[in-house]
Amino acid sequence: MHRTQSAKRNTHSSLGGIFAAALTPMDQDLNVDHGAFAEHCRRLLAAGCHGLGVFGTTGEANSLSVEERITALHLLAEDGIPGEKLLPGTGSCALTDTVRLSRAALEVGAASVLVLPPFFYKGVSDEGVFRFFAELIERIGDERLQVYLYHFPQMAGVGFGLPLIERLLEAYPGVVAGTKDSAGAWERIEAVCREFPGFSVFAGTERYLLDTLRHGGVGCISATVNITSRLAREVYDAHEAGQEDADILQERLTGLRATIEAYPLIPVLKLLMQHYTHEESWSNLRPPLCRLTEDQTQDLLRRSPVPLSYER
Amino acid sequence: MHRTQSAKRNTHSSLGGIFAAALTPMDQDLNVDHGAFAEHCRRLLAAGCHGLGVFGTTGEANSLSVEERITALHLLAEDGIPGEKLLPGTGSCALTDTVRLSRAALEVGAASVLVLPPFFYKGVSDEGVFRFFAELIERIGDERLQVYLYHFPQMAGVGFGLPLIERLLEAYPGVVAGTKDSAGAWERIEAVCREFPGFSVFAGTERYLLDTLRHGGVGCISATVNITSRLAREVYDAHEAGQEDADILQERLTGLRATIEAYPLIPVLKLLMQHYTHEESWSNLRPPLCRLTEDQTQDLLRRSPVPLSYER
Repeated sequence: MHRTQSAKRNTHSSLGGIFAAALTPMDQDLNVDHGAFAEHCRRLLAAGCHGLGVFGTTGEANSLSVEERITALHLLAEDGIPGEKLLPGTGSCALTDTVRLSRAALEVGAASVLVLPPFFYKGVSDEGVFRFFAELIERIGDERLQVYLYHFPQMAGVGFGLPLIERLLEAYPGVVAGTKDSAGAWERIEAVCREFPGFSVFAGTERYLLDTLRHGGVGCISATVNITSRLAREVYDAHEAGQEDADILQERLTGLRATIEAYPLIPVLKLLMQHYTHEESWSNLRPPLCRLTEDQTQDLLRRSPVPLSYER
Repeated sequence: MHRTQSAKRNTHSSLGGIFAAALTPMDQDLNVDHGAFAEHCRRLLAAGCHGLGVFGTTGEANSLSVEERITALHLLAEDGIPGEKLLPGTGSCALTDTVRLSRAALEVGAASVLVLPPFFYKGVSDEGVFRFFAELIERIGDERLQVYLYHFPQMAGVGFGLPLIERLLEAYPGVVAGTKDSAGAWERIEAVCREFPGFSVFAGTERYLLDTLRHGGVGCISATVNITSRLAREVYDAHEAGQEDADILQERLTGLRATIEAYPLIPVLKLLMQHYTHEESWSNLRPPLCRLTEDQTQDLLRRSPVPLSYER
């Protein structure tokens, strides 16, 4: 199946900047609230996001069926969210599901997809993960496809070591376009930026945003950007403009991130969204995720207000 | 959603004995070979299996889409495999998928389902896993449903602690019927048998078959039973009959298991099936799983023949 792709490696992917790993609002029956989802996407874009990492870990994507994800993607498109602003997560345990999800992304103009390695089996070989991605790319067979490797070993239990990234880049230049690195270690992000020039590296947390940009990375894709988008964008713009205050802004951003991530991340982000928008669809999470406990909620609300850059 | 179930707890589930965690044969395009699958199921039942744990870890279930699993289940039924002999795996990361898969199992008369906890998010609370199972049972709303908890924390990254089992049994007596314990520790199996009399405990390996039966458990559900079914059944029958040679048979069974599990388990089982049946559909695995390397294969075939109890 591994026929050579004719496409050349991009020297730079078109994606870059501040991406929210968008939350998915849900109704009381735990179904996606499509209207609220599109509204949230619009707000995030208006609040400075260059793009949206929809259906990632933060978006509870793997708690949704393939049909639910495809329906939600089509409804976002129908609701006017431009496909080229989206970086949909299409990773799953089953090759056939990831193929189907990635095709659906292409259908709405979202050619760039963020793909977890298949994550049920643990201790799998690089050969096995390579074959998964090779089959994915060959089965899609669409030259528009841009694959971003979603490295989050703490959650997936499977990751992308540097030799595997190198092998994928050699085999599919111009298709394997970049990565979101959510492993949480700066040393790893730095190494990937250094070893693979032209490979688009997104930090998985805005904590490393400025460092990532300074080492040749392209931005960040982060859960907390649902809340911090304006400030994160200010850091990005200050860096682009060569402004001296970039470090000061980054320090504020890092502090804001730290305040939020003291709590379970997806529940606290949904609680904050509910608090600021008064929309009920932010109060629901699919199991196994749960709302914050009453104690956690009171603790959060007792603090002096979190200095949110998010504005309604 | 947690309305009380009126059904009483079974004092003993109807399921018990030797269950193969059945392999799934695949064609060259990595699709399920339905004919070969039904044939394999028939052979296993003829070779002494009381039942078949189809679509488990060994069956590469999570490498198949929900549609592929449902289609395969219906085709097994059409091909004459009795639903009541099946314990289909219906676990997935998405509640909606597990509901759909479990409904499909009920449709073919397989009321007992083996359910992984949702396994993408790690570090989730017992409350979150409880809510997943509560929603599953309430949404199915069928009094025939029997849920077996699939405890395999090394693979799933999420497991069932004893307090969680107790809570599920209290909330859904007669529905939460048993467990497959694949954690690999005898102490845990012993503790679950001791703490929850009437809860049907299957060991996840035939290594603990006799010990499990002697401590009140009901049998084993194991990958290697694809190969060891006849001998495993002999151990079971010897125990049931109170024969003195049960320990000697168990020792042979344990040795056979050890010989096989020296290799990556699913690939070696498929290789052995191919070797003994000469059917091509045993040579294919979905990525991220891979065939044994040439070295591993040669090493395996150089040994004096594995004393298979499997007979064509």
